[in-house]
Order: sequence, then structure tokens, then C-alpha cells
Amino acid sequence: MSELVVNLPDGSELSVEEGATVEDVAYEIGPGLGEDTVAGVVDGELVDKAAPVHDGAQVVIVTDQSDEYLRVLRHTAAHVFAQALQRLYPEAKLAIGPSTDEGFYYDVTNVDLDADDLEAIEDEMEEIIEEDLPVERELRSREDALELYEENPYKRDILENEAAGDDELSFYVQGEFEDLCKGPHVESTGKIGAVELLNISSAYWRGDEENETLTRVYGTAFESEKDLKEYMELRAEAEERDHRKIGREMDLFSIPEVTGPGLPLYHPNGKRILSELSEFAESLNLDADYEPVETPHLFRTELWKKSGHYDNYVDDMFLLDVNDEEYGLKPMNCPGHATIFDQNSWSYRDLPVRYFEDGKVYRKEQRGELSGLSRVWSFTIDDGHLFCRPEQIEQEIRQVMNSIYEVLDTFGLEAHVALATRPEKSVGSDEIWEQSESQLRSVLENQNIDYDLEPGDGAFYGPKIDFSFEDALGRKWDGPTVQVDFNMPERFDLTYTGEDNEEHRPVMIHRALYGSYERFFMVLIEHFNGKFPFWLAPEQVRILPISDDQLGYAHRVKNELGDFRVSVEDRSWTLGRKIREGQEDNVPYMLIVGENEEESGTISVRDRQEREEQDVSIDAFREHLEAEYDEKRLEPDFLAD
Amino acid sequence: MSELVVNLPDGSELSVEEGATVEDVAYEIGPGLGEDTVAGVVDGELVDKAAPVHDGAQVVIVTDQSDEYLRVLRHTAAHVFAQALQRLYPEAKLAIGPSTDEGFYYDVTNVDLDADDLEAIEDEMEEIIEEDLPVERELRSREDALELYEENPYKRDILENEAAGDDELSFYVQGEFEDLCKGPHVESTGKIGAVELLNISSAYWRGDEENETLTRVYGTAFESEKDLKEYMELRAEAEERDHRKIGREMDLFSIPEVTGPGLPLYHPNGKRILSELSEFAESLNLDADYEPVETPHLFRTELWKKSGHYDNYVDDMFLLDVNDEEYGLKPMNCPGHATIFDQNSWSYRDLPVRYFEDGKVYRKEQRGELSGLSRVWSFTIDDGHLFCRPEQIEQEIRQVMNSIYEVLDTFGLEAHVALATRPEKSVGSDEIWEQSESQLRSVLENQNIDYDLEPGDGAFYGPKIDFSFEDALGRKWDGPTVQVDFNMPERFDLTYTGEDNEEHRPVMIHRALYGSYERFFMVLIEHFNGKFPFWLAPEQVRILPISDDQLGYAHRVKNELGDFRVSVEDRSWTLGRKIREGQEDNVPYMLIVGENEEESGTISVRDRQEREEQDVSIDAFREHLEAEYDEKRLEPDFLAD
Repeated sequence: MSELVVNLPDGSELSVEEGATVEDVAYEIGPGLGEDTVAGVVDGELVDKAAPVHDGAQVVIVTDQSDEYLRVLRHTAAHVFAQALQRLYPEAKLAIGPSTDEGFYYDVTNVDLDADDLEAIEDEMEEIIEEDLPVERELRSREDALELYEENPYKRDILENEAAGDDELSFYVQGEFEDLCKGPHVESTGKIGAVELLNISSAYWRGDEENETLTRVYGTAFESEKDLKEYMELRAEAEERDHRKIGREMDLFSIPEVTGPGLPLYHPNGKRILSELSEFAESLNLDADYEPVETPHLFRTELWKKSGHYDNYVDDMFLLDVNDEEYGLKPMNCPGHATIFDQNSWSYRDLPVRYFEDGKVYRKEQRGELSGLSRVWSFTIDDGHLFCRPEQIEQEIRQVMNSIYEVLDTFGLEAHVALATRPEKSVGSDEIWEQSESQLRSVLENQNIDYDLEPGDGAFYGPKIDFSFEDALGRKWDGPTVQVDFNMPERFDLTYTGEDNEEHRPVMIHRALYGSYERFFMVLIEHFNGKFPFWLAPEQVRILPISDDQLGYAHRVKNELGDFRVSVEDRSWTLGRKIREGQEDNVPYMLIVGENEEESGTISVRDRQEREEQDVSIDAFREHLEAEYDEKRLEPDFLAD
Repeated sequence: MSELVVNLPDGSELSVEEGATVEDVAYEIGPGLGEDTVAGVVDGELVDKAAPVHDGAQVVIVTDQSDEYLRVLRHTAAHVFAQALQRLYPEAKLAIGPSTDEGFYYDVTNVDLDADDLEAIEDEMEEIIEEDLPVERELRSREDALELYEENPYKRDILENEAAGDDELSFYVQGEFEDLCKGPHVESTGKIGAVELLNISSAYWRGDEENETLTRVYGTAFESEKDLKEYMELRAEAEERDHRKIGREMDLFSIPEVTGPGLPLYHPNGKRILSELSEFAESLNLDADYEPVETPHLFRTELWKKSGHYDNYVDDMFLLDVNDEEYGLKPMNCPGHATIFDQNSWSYRDLPVRYFEDGKVYRKEQRGELSGLSRVWSFTIDDGHLFCRPEQIEQEIRQVMNSIYEVLDTFGLEAHVALATRPEKSVGSDEIWEQSESQLRSVLENQNIDYDLEPGDGAFYGPKIDFSFEDALGRKWDGPTVQVDFNMPERFDLTYTGEDNEEHRPVMIHRALYGSYERFFMVLIEHFNGKFPFWLAPEQVRILPISDDQLGYAHRVKNELGDFRVSVEDRSWTLGRKIREGQEDNVPYMLIVGENEEESGTISVRDRQEREEQDVSIDAFREHLEAEYDEKRLEPDFLAD
């Protein structure tokens, strides 16, 4: 019998017989691992342990100790939900029920559910877990499958599409329940330690607005009650911090129906924060010798064809017809910047040329995908593009990394870094790939930056460094990217004159410090829970006169504080109510001024952390504010010990 | 016979017989005026002196002393051009030939002209002027006219459209030449003192791109050679200062064909100037308690229907289809600001609420109308909208006027002001019109501002104050506008709760300090002839090392000058060439550093006016720059006596 060679996570190779499954591979590694095997990851895809491996496959064995185990368990929980639903509502029709990052969902129809029904279904799910039913994989013929799903158009749709070529179809059976499914699953329903149904919403079949609407039930599952409890607490905290909720409460932005979906309006409080963010990025850019530019939002599609975006992006682009010519709203800023570069002739001595722009871009996401500021139709990128000689990549990447670290540090965000290298399909010579990858590695290594290597994950047009970061709730977010690009200079035929007096092709580097302002703003709202650092706070200081008699003094104090965002609370409330209101509005500092303060020309300072001090000199306080603002400190610290 | 009453410019009324002409009115006023009459202006329209007046008409008599006389003379000059053309090219077909602000043009076809042919035509025109042919008005029947123009489709088009209802058609005849024309004209070709053909271009019949292309010849005419000479000198100066020319030379912006017409790209030098302008406006806005907002560029057309722009503006709007719904790029920022106002509930104590935004808008001008930055498809308005109680209009208008005067003073632009009041068709009650007009008048009068009253020239939705200003060449430009608006709050059903606890309608005021950045930038480029004040100059200081040995010192000086836009000239040129280059680039200050300067730690300062001083302390110079920048002084004045 012939042999196959598979690659294991430690970099070693293993020979197995042709036809071997994931489980066979595990047994070959060791009998203990074989017994513990729950599933496998083959070439990045989570599969059943009975799945065959192929020659050259990258194989990871999944046990109940693996990160992927929770995904497997949640997939089984989705089946448990479907089984419970059908016990209670035999008429319900099932569509699909995958696991997700946070749990699972199942799309169903022919059943009228609302939130009140979830508890009974959850009870039934716990019953099924109690029954500890073995979950078994069975192969059925296409005929049997079609007969079984004679009256279920969704499963038939799957049989006719995703599973069109398969003669044997994989089913998973637990007790009286069976489901067309590629798996994998845990071995019995009893392995699920804790389950919770979270909410109910609607969805389109295959996410397409043209199709019928299904009922989607979201749930989650864990190995233990303790894990579930922790998750539910974090979830409540996250809901409390939801940027849409805080956005309304703090009057930051709105996305009203009349203006259109995914098109946010920034109210004064939100715009103040965006302006501070933009000024911060601008100062970092100017320090790094970037030059400001401004490009239109509308371009002939000729430009998008030249840049290649039309071929790859046209479905996401907003197109329009002007005098029988096609135009497109820009989905990216790079072609505009390349066009500006192309308006001049450049010598090697002029390079690098670095442009930056707060550039608004437009991408037509499905309406169902739009959500608050996290997925929108139009968003602004703090976009920068630089054009350099190949040997300058290292110095430029180093500089960009420094700026990115300065940004993340300023917000107290911890970064993870990954280096993504040349994929199978790529443009550019071997030489330039090697040169640029080695320069990127050298930056990371010389600065002692921990990073994950992601071989083959670079863009087809160049290697890149990806940042991700964790917010205060430990949630991971995609962060800035630094992308080397050999393709765009080629497509735009960009050149510079070298020392040898010949024409050369510059390298283009794309970079952003925040990425999208919308997304970053959303993360900041939730990360800070609305309690923005002093420099960002839309209202920085609120002056509370104890009675209306001190209104005049309050305004004099405001004037003495200079250009900060200071307001005077002039409603005739009790001091207690004024303080409560200021606290709810997350104002970093409240200044209480009564008769005593007016007489002595001082203020009483109270901060957001509820610390207080009396008899403070206005000058001393203003000087502190200036330092706190300039240094972009994370917490109001005038009253820190 | 019955009588008519006409109104004269001095406010008086005059009775004349029914059927009286402009000339009759003039004779009625006085026989001298009757004899001098060349033409008339009836209800704002320039007409022949033989035109009849109607009851209630506003009549102005035009003599050779009137402002309008030059227009009449230039119209005759257009006929002289056509006559000369037909003498030299009998096959040429005439389309139309009106007078313009700067002269006249004539659109012709069936003749192959280029710039070299203009001189001979001009000579022939001078011949015709010499002949002093009387210009006579003749009335012809429609039949005769149609026969005459049997082979001229343009004149026939006019006969069938503009002149469709007229049985008697007015022709003007001079010597062998005759033209279908409503007049008026001067009495003989000899009245033209000087004539010049300026250039040749192409145009579409009736300006419509679907129609055939015609040859357009531009010319001008004056009463005397001296006037023509003055005009030609100013014109040469204006060409020298053309913002497109300076824009290229100073690398400020470009409008490349590939990106689309009317869609400018701002290069770093241009964007630096725009950013300074934007910061200046922002500081004035923040001082006046305006709050920053940001609105999308794309809205459902539902919003534009609500605001009324769809009905009035749809032909100029960029529309697109998204998921079978119609969206429009914003032609104005006001509906977005009204929508933000509408997201909150307001008490009378909160008003005025004032928003500002650098808002990019899109208007689909005819491609033939696009020109540099003066007519574009997308432009940014420094737009502000405020919502106030009716009795607050005066204080708000006063504040806006102050900001506008501060802007115009800063740029050395002289303003003319006009108050435009209620037109015949209008929305809003008598009471609110009277109240707001009297508040506007009161601002103008209390501040001793000279203004022209333009009765009936207000928008249908409210009165307004228009600014225009003169640039360094004495050319007049439309400037900012302050517009009161009773309509938009109605359409958006905007309300606030009054002291009486009832819902009230706020008044909206539209205002901009610059208007469009693009247009204002264009005016500034030409006004300053590229020699921007220090605070605006894209490159503020250039350091010229006498030899490469001082490059290090040059960079140290740069660092000591702080955040100004300073460059070091590091090309190995002679000092003379470096200075010439700096002068050509309009850099306000050049610092020359040689061995002596390096030894003594000083600089030699040379300004754009070619003044020089040696042994200057770097600190003293930096301190001066800070003051010059902060005070936005018009000219570099470190070396002023």
C-alpha cells in the first residue's frame, strides 16, 4: 500500500498509509493521543476525526484540551438546541446551525418563537444533556437524504449546492435526532457542561435580502457552569458598554433611518473626539515627515480599472453614471495618492515621498451586516502611503511601527503582531520579496518584538505586518496594518530616476495608525466605557455653582481655564443632582464653586473617580490640565495621591 | 388717449401716453436727455430705445455716460466682427453673438479659423469702424426672416423658439450687413473707439453637449484706445496670475483627466494652505460657540425630497442606485445639519444651537463650464448652520458679520454688502419677514455698514446679506452670504419648547465665512499672485547653506525654528541660483548660512521683497515668526523698516 506524508504543528513530518484518517494520524503519533482525539484541523479547516488526510496536508489533532474543542462542543450544542426544539415543536423546520466565535445559532422556520419561549427550550436542552446521548456519525445515500428532506427546502438547497458532488452524505445522530452535517462533534451530549440561549432575531436564508426570512436563535455553551457564568458577566459588561448605547447617552453620533443605513452623523460630542484623534494622528504624521494631501471621493471607473480595484471590488463599490460615463465612490485612498505621486517627476534623492489624508471611503456592505459604527457604508481611514526605494523599506517600516506603538500605548491597548509572508500566487520578483521580507523581519527582531509568523498569508502584492489588540474587556480587535506593495507602482507605472540616471520602480507602503476612525472610535467608546481620557473627553470640565449667585464667578473661572472644553451648569438643581448628572455624563473634572470659593478666588475640584479637594488655585489647576492634555494621560490625575 | 405711469430711478413717477417708447420717456423727462438716449433698461432688461414701456415699468435711460453703455457698444462690436468675418469668409454661418462682462463673443460655423486668422479679421473690423456705418433697426415679417435664413439652422432655431410668438422681427443693419437681433446698439460703428479679438475656442450650440460644436471667437471693445490698453494690461497680469498656472508652478493641485473632470487633487503644498484656512475658520467658529459636526456625503433621496432639494436641484445632483433605492451625493450640507438638530429635544434655553462643518458637496456642472478651481464638481464649504429663536436673529447676524469682516480683513479684501429682501413669492408669515428684515437692517445700520438694498432679491425662504469683494486686480467676486431661512425648519418640523411650555419653530441661519474653499483658494492664489502671507505659505522658510559644509548647521537652524514649514536647500547649486529658485517659489524668508554664520551661531535673513540683514539671532527670528504667524500678517515684515 502506498504512503502519504503529513505535516505536524511541531514542523515534523509523518508517514501514514493512504486512506488514513485524522484519528489514524493521532494513533500513529501515540495511542494516548489517538484515544483522546475529538476532531482535527486539516489545512486550517476543522473536520471530523474520521476525515481522511491527503499527502502534504497540515494536520492538527484536536482533543478536549485544544483551543478548537469549544467550537466542536458548541456545534453539538446547536444540535441539542435543534433536538429540543423539535421535541417541543415537531413542525419546526431546520435550516443551518453553525458554531460561532461566541457560541452558536440555529436558523429555523415554520415555528412562531419569541424570547419567552427560550426558557422552555433551554430546559429541554438540559434534559438532553442529562440523557448523555452518544453523538454518532452515519453516512447515508443521496437518495435517502433527499427523501428525508423532501419537505425541507433549506436542507435540499444544501444537498443541491454545497454537497452537490457527494454520493455519501454525513449525518450526525443523537437519540431520535438526526441532522445533515459535516461535523465534527463531541462524543456525547453529556460533554456539554453548560448551555444558555441568548436571544432571538431574524436572518435571511444565505444572508441574501431577496430570500425568505428565518428565525435565528443564538445560544452559547461551555464545558462548565463556571465558564458560562464568567462569560455571561463579561457579556453583561459588554452590553453595558455597547457603543450604540453610550453613543446615545453621551450624544456622540446617530444613524437615522431617513439619511440611510451605515451612514453615521457625528454630533458635536462625537466630532470633538474624532477631531482630537485626527489631530493626534496628524502630529505623528508630520513628525515623521508625512505630507498632507486631499483627494476627491468620486473618480472615473477608469482609475479603478487601472488600480485593479474594479476587478476585485466592483460588487462592494458605489457606482454611478455621469453623462454616460461610469464613476465610482472610492473604496480605497491609494489610487488617489498614487495619482498625485504620478503628477511629478522624482529623483532618488526625493524619496521617500510620504502622503497622508483622513480619507473617507465607501464600501457597500450588505444591509444586514451593518451595525453601529463597527460595520458602516462610509468610513474614514487615517490613510498614509509612502513611496520609497526598495532598500528604504526597513527604515520606513521601523518608523511606522514606532508611530503605531505610540498610538496603542496612548490608549493603553496591548498589541499582538503577526508577519504575513509571500503567498503561492504573487506578483514581484523573488529578489524583491526576499529583500522586503528580510527587512520586515529585521525590524521586528532588532526591536525585540514578539510576533507570529504567518507563512503564505501576505497579500499577493507584498508582505505585511498585522497588529491586533485587546481592549479592557479582553476582546481582540484587528488593528493597524503595514502593507508593502509591489503591484500598485507597476499598475500606475510609477518611476523615479536613480543615481544611475535610469528609471526605477518605487515600492509603495500602505499604512494606517488607527485603521478606520469609525471602528477605532467604537473600540475606544467600549474600551473606556465612555470615560474618555481628559484629552479626548467631549466635555472636559463642568463648573457647578452651588447657587445661581455664583453663576458670574463660574463664568469667570471658565474664562480663566482657556481653550479647554468647559461648561457651566446653569440649571437650578441641587448640588447633589448636579454632581450626579456630571458623573453620569463621564465628565473628568467637576469644579464646585460656592460663596467661599468666590471669596477666596479658588475652586473645589472633584474628579470622575469621586476624589475631592478644596481651596485649589485656578492657575495650578489650569497648569495641571495643560500637562494632562499634552501628555494624553489615561485618567484624570490632578487628585491622584 | 389713455396714459401709462412709469417709475424712474430717483423714485419719481412719470405719466406718458400709451404706446410710448423708452426714447419718448426720455424726451418727456427732458429734450436733452431724449437726444442723448442710446438705449434703455426696462425692468432690469437692456432694450432698444424704440422698445415700448408698459404701465408700472421701472425705466432707466441709457446714454453714453451710463454704465450700461459699454455693453451696448460691445454688442455692436460683435456685429462688426460678424460683418468683417462675412466680408472675408462669405461662406461663414452665424449663430449668436452677445456681449459679456468682459467684451463679446460670436459663435460661427462653416469656416475654418485659427488664432492666426484673427489679425486680418481685426483689420477688417477697424476698416468698418472707420467707415462709421449707421446702425439701423428694421422690422421684418416672419416670412422674410425665414427666407433670409433658409440655410442657417441656428437663426431658424431662434425664430422657432425665442422669437416664436413675434410676427415682426427686429433686425439691425449696418452697411451690407444685417442680423436678427433684439438690440440695443450704438448709433454707428464709428462709436467704437477700440477693438481687439482675444482668442478662439469651441462651444456647443446652446451649450448642450448633444449639439454640434461651433467656433467661438472672443473679443472686446472700448470707447477709447486708452481704455483698451488698460484692460489689456490688467488681462496680461491676470493671465500671469492665473491660479491654474500658479497651481502648477507651486505644485498646489491638479485635475488629471484619469480621475475625472472637476474633481481636484490637492498636492501637499495646496493641502497645507487649505488646512491653515480650515484652522482659521475653525478658530473663529469655536470662538463664536459653534460646535463641530460631521455628516455623510451620501443620503437617501428621501432626505432630499424632505428638504426640497430634490425638486429644485435634481438635475445638478449625482444620483445612484443602491439595492434598488435612490441615493444622492449631497449638494448642500444643511439637511444633514437639520437632521442632527432633529435628533435631540431642545428648550428655549439651549438656543441658539450652532453647528459647523467643512462639508464637501457635489454639483454636476456641465463639463464645458468646468474651469480650474473656479467651477468644479465637488467642493468644500466651510458651512455653518444655526438654529435660534426669531428674536435672536439680530445678535446672531451681528456675530456672523463680525467673523466675516475678520476673514476679509485678514486677507486684505475690501467688502461690498447688499441686503436682499422679501420677493413676491415667499414662505413665512408677514410678521416673521418684517421682524427678520428689520433685525438685518438694524445690524447693518448700528454698525455703520454701507449697503445696497436689493428689494425683492431675497430667497423665497428668507432675507439675506450678500458680500462681494475686490481682489488685488480690482476684480469683483461673490463672497460669503448670510441667509435667514424660515422654510427648512418647517420642512424638517424642527421645534423647541418655549418658556410657555409650547412647541415653537426655530429660525435657521445659513452662513459661510469663505463660501467654497475651492473658489476662495482660487481667488487667494490670484489675489496674492502666489505670494501667500507667511501663515499660509506652504513653504515658510528655506535655509540656503553657502556650501555643503554648512548642511549640518542648516539642519540645526531648522530644528531651532520649531514647527514652522522650513526646508533646507541641499542641492549643490551656487548661492545665486539657490536664491533665484527660492524667489521663484515665493518663499517668504530665505536664511543664508555660511562659515561666518555657523561660527557666530547666527543667520542672514533675506525676505521675498529682497531685503537682507546679517548677524540675526535665531531666537529673535523665531520669536518674530511666531508673532507674524499668530497675527496672520499679510507680508513678511521681519526686515520692515
